[in-house]
Amino acid sequence: MSLHDDLVALLGASHVLTGDDLARYRAEWSGHYSPNPAIVARPASTAEVAGVVQIAARHGVPVVPVSGLTGLVGGAMTTGGLMVSVERLNRIREIRSEARTAVVEAGVILSRLHDAAARQGMYFPLWFGARGSAMIGGVLSTNAGGSNVLRYGSTRALCLGLEVVLADGRVLNLMSELHKDNSGYDLKQLFIGAEGTLGIITAAVMKLVPAPRAYATATLAARSLPDALALLNRLREVTGGLVEAFEYMPATYMQRLAEARPDVALPFGGQRYETNILVEIAATAPRDAAVAEDGTVPLTALLEETLGQLIEEGAVLDAEIAQNEAQRLTMWHRRELAAEITIARQPTIDTDIALPLHLVPEFFARIEARLPALDPGCDTLSVAHLGDGNIHYTVYPTRDDPALYDAVVEAVEDVVQDLHGSFSAEHGVGLSKLATMKRRKDPVALAVMRAIKQSIDPENRMNPGKVIPE
Amino acid sequence: MSLHDDLVALLGASHVLTGDDLARYRAEWSGHYSPNPAIVARPASTAEVAGVVQIAARHGVPVVPVSGLTGLVGGAMTTGGLMVSVERLNRIREIRSEARTAVVEAGVILSRLHDAAARQGMYFPLWFGARGSAMIGGVLSTNAGGSNVLRYGSTRALCLGLEVVLADGRVLNLMSELHKDNSGYDLKQLFIGAEGTLGIITAAVMKLVPAPRAYATATLAARSLPDALALLNRLREVTGGLVEAFEYMPATYMQRLAEARPDVALPFGGQRYETNILVEIAATAPRDAAVAEDGTVPLTALLEETLGQLIEEGAVLDAEIAQNEAQRLTMWHRRELAAEITIARQPTIDTDIALPLHLVPEFFARIEARLPALDPGCDTLSVAHLGDGNIHYTVYPTRDDPALYDAVVEAVEDVVQDLHGSFSAEHGVGLSKLATMKRRKDPVALAVMRAIKQSIDPENRMNPGKVIPE
Repeated sequence: MSLHDDLVALLGASHVLTGDDLARYRAEWSGHYSPNPAIVARPASTAEVAGVVQIAARHGVPVVPVSGLTGLVGGAMTTGGLMVSVERLNRIREIRSEARTAVVEAGVILSRLHDAAARQGMYFPLWFGARGSAMIGGVLSTNAGGSNVLRYGSTRALCLGLEVVLADGRVLNLMSELHKDNSGYDLKQLFIGAEGTLGIITAAVMKLVPAPRAYATATLAARSLPDALALLNRLREVTGGLVEAFEYMPATYMQRLAEARPDVALPFGGQRYETNILVEIAATAPRDAAVAEDGTVPLTALLEETLGQLIEEGAVLDAEIAQNEAQRLTMWHRRELAAEITIARQPTIDTDIALPLHLVPEFFARIEARLPALDPGCDTLSVAHLGDGNIHYTVYPTRDDPALYDAVVEAVEDVVQDLHGSFSAEHGVGLSKLATMKRRKDPVALAVMRAIKQSIDPENRMNPGKVIPE
Repeated sequence: MSLHDDLVALLGASHVLTGDDLARYRAEWSGHYSPNPAIVARPASTAEVAGVVQIAARHGVPVVPVSGLTGLVGGAMTTGGLMVSVERLNRIREIRSEARTAVVEAGVILSRLHDAAARQGMYFPLWFGARGSAMIGGVLSTNAGGSNVLRYGSTRALCLGLEVVLADGRVLNLMSELHKDNSGYDLKQLFIGAEGTLGIITAAVMKLVPAPRAYATATLAARSLPDALALLNRLREVTGGLVEAFEYMPATYMQRLAEARPDVALPFGGQRYETNILVEIAATAPRDAAVAEDGTVPLTALLEETLGQLIEEGAVLDAEIAQNEAQRLTMWHRRELAAEITIARQPTIDTDIALPLHLVPEFFARIEARLPALDPGCDTLSVAHLGDGNIHYTVYPTRDDPALYDAVVEAVEDVVQDLHGSFSAEHGVGLSKLATMKRRKDPVALAVMRAIKQSIDPENRMNPGKVIPE
């Protein structure tokens, strides 16, 4: 039987898609990559995923796992291949608020998990713009980050247990809800962030945290970027580590926002500052969230007091504290439009880098000194999860020239490498950073990655050609 | 040249130990294993470690890494082999309080790191009895846990970067201080907890946290174990997650303490309760630690108030709150004598298990129902990091009989497996749990571990015979 017939025999015809039914699998959100699968298989259970993988193995066909298609690095790219979508593994099997865990399948959309957790007073602390489409499988496979990493860590830190279908169809069951387990290598860590190159994640046990009882949110203008970094530590210190988000939007970001989305109000009544920060503090304890007679909660008062001191010291030039949920959401809206306003102008050269925090200002100084020699007229746009040292730095070249593109990317890489940073902070490698992996990744680390890949997927059938360069 | 001569040529005669100089490497703390190396090499740098490993490779000799020798599972066991001690890689290279990081070498003793961090107002939140001897290399290689995992996680969660010497002498440099890095597989996670079977850890970048500003510490008697678990959540909730330790000492523990160490005062004036808990809450924020006029800090008042409520509700029968540091240390002293009082009586069958929290009472019910059939006169002793579901459950059989030993271990394993627990929570596998790994570990997980080991150490030269059963 053909591959197609074998898949139909296993899954039924309605879950083996071809032709026109493939339209919605053809575009990754970024638009940089247009997957063109020949077949999309949609298994509904771990056993069916294993069956699909075994069928693929019999036919000698590679497998490209896919979930929400919100990746930005071409991780789900294929030309004529077999995509395995986990969208039908979409059950939230269990939410246990007293144990603070959620048992979820790979096809669960992130915002569904947010909602289900919220109904039990809990929060799944992974938060980013694509949460309405991204699925747990992709979130785990890319070790997704976002805006709350500062307090709660990346996906990796939020996973207690994992289930993975391996290249030969064996099921690796690591579905533990234990907080301590030293019975051998921590294998789940290997599959988290492997972008489907080692197996297909089918289910997971994720950690939940108590839903914040109140937020204190502000947009502030710092005197300088180093001042902003110093005040991050100050805020973490006075709150005892309750800062959940610390997002950087420079003046150019606000200007681009105004151009692309004139409907969105700018902070500070349009007054322009160089260094704008969205900071959010979340109250977990009742004592931090108890509403006083004047309607304030202690944490908001604390933020107000601290920002007042910082203004007096001159480190903060201006600050707006959200007085209600609507104002808070406006502040977040500005930040979450980043992806939209970044790609509104083309061509773009986008990056996703991480730096030691104290070297973030140095990065900007160095890259801005180098760009004019490459493309004197280029523009740039930055937005950053500054609390994690994670910058999305975009260059708009004056011409669509592959050589220029490469030169700019290499310049960014040079600076990042000199400053002991990472060329891929949270989006992963996929296809888009393969050349960079080859150029910049420590050769010993690359060799070890290759050895591991070879040992777990000896026929190179799981998402081949991604993450690890030839 | 002989192995010995090659090592002397590299390290100098004074750092290639043989004969009588080996005495202090012959005993692991537990006394269960007595390593008997033929040679101990003491390199002083990463390059020297690589050199030693290369020399070993040339001579076809396996390598047993060793640091503080405080392991409990025979991980450093060897008979006639080459031990590589990292004790001379003992520099704390850097402590950066504003970045909350410490760059340390593998031979740094844990308590030295505690002290160095404290001098900068920081805390390295890994705390256990052997901290005065255990070294960072072993701590990482065993993914050590201890009493603060509840709030800060195990060693794995505290490591940002790692340096490892591989079996062929290549140096894998993953010494990052980044909080986000998705440039390929997170290889450091594989070496953490691998007990030296994949390479020798030589240095690491560790996370620090701000030193707690004040502690609120209590010993309390819960009405029952389920009540204790419920009150853990209650305390985490009212404090907003500031519970650092939640340690369980049953009545039998207190009795054994009284017998073995009559010099140590019992809690509650000697009044016997079944379910004793040591709870510690740590104030990170200034508002939780500000000393009031009556000398109290808000967190102590909060603990007092909450325990008062719980006493009224009947869930707590009695409670003592430490009124000063001396009282706090007394409470901790009782708990930290666990190792001493456990091995004071022989023979022992000790275990280190983890369970989903809500199944901890069920574990005790089931194992206590099974033991009498195996050895009607046996005694038991428990002490637990209850907040992590981690129990050190010791059985004292009435006779020193290997068959009885195995039967008891298997009974514990049966119950743990039925309850989806782990037979090795924090001590690791080493030699002592090899048979259990073979019997109990998921066969697919074992196969993947073997494949990885083979891919990274194809000649099986790094700590062979440990962790992975034949």
